[in-house]
Amino acid sequence: MLARTYDDQVCSIARALEVVGERWSLLLVRDAFLGLSRFEQFQTSLGIGRNVLTNRLGRLVEAGVFERIRYQQHPDRFDYRLTPMGRQLLVPILALMHWGDDHLAEPAGPPRLAQHAECGGELHAALICRQCQSPVPAHQVTVVPGPGQHPPT
Amino acid sequence: MLARTYDDQVCSIARALEVVGERWSLLLVRDAFLGLSRFEQFQTSLGIGRNVLTNRLGRLVEAGVFERIRYQQHPDRFDYRLTPMGRQLLVPILALMHWGDDHLAEPAGPPRLAQHAECGGELHAALICRQCQSPVPAHQVTVVPGPGQHPPT
Repeated sequence: MLARTYDDQVCSIARALEVVGERWSLLLVRDAFLGLSRFEQFQTSLGIGRNVLTNRLGRLVEAGVFERIRYQQHPDRFDYRLTPMGRQLLVPILALMHWGDDHLAEPAGPPRLAQHAECGGELHAALICRQCQSPVPAHQVTVVPGPGQHPPT
Repeated sequence: MLARTYDDQVCSIARALEVVGERWSLLLVRDAFLGLSRFEQFQTSLGIGRNVLTNRLGRLVEAGVFERIRYQQHPDRFDYRLTPMGRQLLVPILALMHWGDDHLAEPAGPPRLAQHAECGGELHAALICRQCQSPVPAHQVTVVPGPGQHPPT
């Protein structure tokens, strides 16, 4: 549905939202990062109907975010695992989580912390310049048309 | 609506999606980063109905993402500008854009490039450790319960 809606937007944000912008989709990806992989686990975590969950998982498999892996025969049962493409949602998801932590968390603090496994330090999402390697603050970011822009705006 | 739906999720990702997860919301924030500020500009950019746009802008103002600033009287006319809270969506939005660039762009390449204004280098979103200052790859990320987790999971 969203695909249709955003179709005339030549924009990678719109395209990303076609894939993960539907209700519950990013929370399914979150749950997969937290170790869930089975239909019933996702259902318990999100408390949503089987139909909606079937639809969302199906669309995410179709889009290449999840893969469905059979772990049992007679009857067939499946795990849903993030693909490499799905795992690359970690940065946008944690960036969104930190924004939520900063602006929407309760006074007690963040419900979850993302840490560096090697040193235990807390992580934050930042924009890094590929040329000078500096972290770049928002006021130093410029957005320009890229090679895929048509027509240029 | 989403607020109600995700209410029992003690999670900053879910809370963030309550605010910016509704259809068109993140594209409105994107358009504001690209310099749009007026109702008619957003409407032209997104091609959506006035009712939906009024609703989305109203909710984003209420949530503190946009502020409404009067620029004309008789009749009153308003600009919609990102608040500091709204501007802090730049990192999650660019992280999502880069994910879209990597996996969903046409062969010609990304429609837009985010650059470092000072040196012209391309930006990418990364997870940085606050303790050792290293960029941290996905397999070195651990998520643990934070102080706002109740009950701990």
